[in-house]
Amino acid sequence: MKMRLSSRILEMQESPIRKLTPYADEAEKKKVKIYHLNIGQPDIDTPPEMMDAIKNTDFKILKYGPSDGLKTYRNALPKYYAKYGIKLAPEDILVTTAGSEAILFAMIAVADVGEEIIITEPYYTNYNGFATMADVKIVPVTTKAETGFAPPPIREIEEKITNRTRAILICNPSNPTGAVYSREEVKSLVQLCKTEKLFLIADEVYREFVYDGYKHTSIMEFPEIVDRAIMVDSISKRYSACGARIGCIISKNHELMQNVLKLGQARLCPPTLEQIAAQAAIDLPETYFDKTLAEYQRRRDIVYKELKNTPGVFCEKPKGAFYIIAKLPVENAEDFAIYMLKHFRDNNETVMFSPADGFYGSKDLGKDEIRIAYVLNANDLKRAMELFKKGLEQYKLDRKS
Amino acid sequence: MKMRLSSRILEMQESPIRKLTPYADEAEKKKVKIYHLNIGQPDIDTPPEMMDAIKNTDFKILKYGPSDGLKTYRNALPKYYAKYGIKLAPEDILVTTAGSEAILFAMIAVADVGEEIIITEPYYTNYNGFATMADVKIVPVTTKAETGFAPPPIREIEEKITNRTRAILICNPSNPTGAVYSREEVKSLVQLCKTEKLFLIADEVYREFVYDGYKHTSIMEFPEIVDRAIMVDSISKRYSACGARIGCIISKNHELMQNVLKLGQARLCPPTLEQIAAQAAIDLPETYFDKTLAEYQRRRDIVYKELKNTPGVFCEKPKGAFYIIAKLPVENAEDFAIYMLKHFRDNNETVMFSPADGFYGSKDLGKDEIRIAYVLNANDLKRAMELFKKGLEQYKLDRKS
Repeated sequence: MKMRLSSRILEMQESPIRKLTPYADEAEKKKVKIYHLNIGQPDIDTPPEMMDAIKNTDFKILKYGPSDGLKTYRNALPKYYAKYGIKLAPEDILVTTAGSEAILFAMIAVADVGEEIIITEPYYTNYNGFATMADVKIVPVTTKAETGFAPPPIREIEEKITNRTRAILICNPSNPTGAVYSREEVKSLVQLCKTEKLFLIADEVYREFVYDGYKHTSIMEFPEIVDRAIMVDSISKRYSACGARIGCIISKNHELMQNVLKLGQARLCPPTLEQIAAQAAIDLPETYFDKTLAEYQRRRDIVYKELKNTPGVFCEKPKGAFYIIAKLPVENAEDFAIYMLKHFRDNNETVMFSPADGFYGSKDLGKDEIRIAYVLNANDLKRAMELFKKGLEQYKLDRKS
Repeated sequence: MKMRLSSRILEMQESPIRKLTPYADEAEKKKVKIYHLNIGQPDIDTPPEMMDAIKNTDFKILKYGPSDGLKTYRNALPKYYAKYGIKLAPEDILVTTAGSEAILFAMIAVADVGEEIIITEPYYTNYNGFATMADVKIVPVTTKAETGFAPPPIREIEEKITNRTRAILICNPSNPTGAVYSREEVKSLVQLCKTEKLFLIADEVYREFVYDGYKHTSIMEFPEIVDRAIMVDSISKRYSACGARIGCIISKNHELMQNVLKLGQARLCPPTLEQIAAQAAIDLPETYFDKTLAEYQRRRDIVYKELKNTPGVFCEKPKGAFYIIAKLPVENAEDFAIYMLKHFRDNNETVMFSPADGFYGSKDLGKDEIRIAYVLNANDLKRAMELFKKGLEQYKLDRKS
């Protein structure tokens, strides 16, 4: 008789970003070129200063670091945040193994088993994974393609609050929608969390990716929720250093931070070398990100324009991050995504993107939507969008026949 | 009114290895030299081949790796295990962010909230942390200083099995006791897990640290439990690379591994650079570890001899790992450990070790025990043990007065 695994792991969702990987592997084995718009892996070079910092180390032993992160790195981080008007002290910061661990720690710290965290959907799908690990219930509040995935009216969030609700979690700028909260919208949430005595957790890893002159607002800018604001951050996107696995959890609630430290102690420490790289990044010139930002805005404009020009496709122009969710004239976007990997070829090339239904907590939403990560250079992106359009046309014809 | 944190994080144990750190920091501020016997941070050089492998990389982007680890590294790992008679295929292995993550993944995969895992105590204290995160209950079976912390009779384990028991977890060789399971002892557990339909999880990160010609036995050597054996491993100790954070979870139960991959996907990937370093370590000469082993055996002998020569101290000679638990003629070993950091000075030096009560799951056990990690060179170790003996004498006098 088969060994029984835990129900929670059996029920756990497969990553919608990575579940189609076997189809992609199969195609790549056959030498098909795939344009990857499915995962938020930027193609921008990691600043060479970061790898140089690692290459210039000369220690003899790769030792455990402190559980809350290397002191030098924690001492340097407030300087980075100060550029964005976020005033922090080193003791407000605990370095984590990427933003992933910061989210898991935040969930465990605020909620017991079965308690609830409200998140607007579609949301970063890995929140599900961490909720499963922590056995916390995600309560989704739906946002819609029709409104450009604008934050929902506060009333709709209020309606979801129960005596088991412990926090509201936002991703701002949003993966997967590209929505950016206005200052007023953040303020409304701050007010709600103050009134309702909830933690406000903000995943702000795309802070720098805000277009058209919009200004990002951090939850750390509101002194009135100093005891309940928890920021989650990561260097993965801003420095194109996804493989470094360095993030942090930030709060001025020091009782919370002392308790989070216990979680940190259990896993001993985040990787040492990459903290040295991350520290080097803090000293990059102020203008470092300007070029990257201009490049991503250009890419967004390409993808948006091409989507708008595709008959039957609906989307609004996203304001931030490097994702866009598009509503397609198909019944099942996953089927279309698999079709592109298995059957569609143009000059032996195809394109990969993520079906968006996995980004929803509510059942049966987003079935006709896809998430595109615009992480390729302009030329590749244009070609990828051409493949998308051709593929969609062919898919629709094939379905009819 | 204060924000309420989750009960689980409030109730979580502080790391007994790291909780005395504030006292140590205080002493170090006053320029007191501390000999650290409190944490398993080896002083042996990390093989330079590992850092060289990182320094010789020339990629431009530090990208996400696969969630189950870099293919080249996974393909190379079976060669390492083959040296120990453990036959593995790459698909039996998922690379994790250190052994820590492997333990957390194993617990989540086999047990639901409130289900039980039986562990012999004293045990690696961070198992508590992961059990808290996963909301799994650890059921301890006590082993005793008097028997050199030998594995308990199978009957004592059997008595703890309930319908909520999902696994037995052993650490072999053991942190913190240094006990090593004989082949017969492992076989008895294998048989028990077969009969009782339990997973057998073995933390074998100290595989190489076995003294006096003893041979380590892995649970992966028993084909009869191929569906329920889960091995946890890490490169931290064998290559003195604790800051690398590279480990793995191993099982030939592929349904389990496919589900564990979902946990892996949620956190995207383990750190990329250190996997490259870890791969380089696999090609170290067969003799690489011989010198290290001889050095640690020598250290064990020094510590053991000095403990045996200290009036009122009891311990048996450990067979593996690099820890020893000693029973002291004091009522409260934590009080003594703090005393050493706060008050005891000899030529402005002192010594730090871990109170052992935090390694027990049962209340009020181990209050008079300490764990010593013999991770210093012979000279430093001799001095550290001298400080320990002097300190103990002075502490006893101070208590009397």
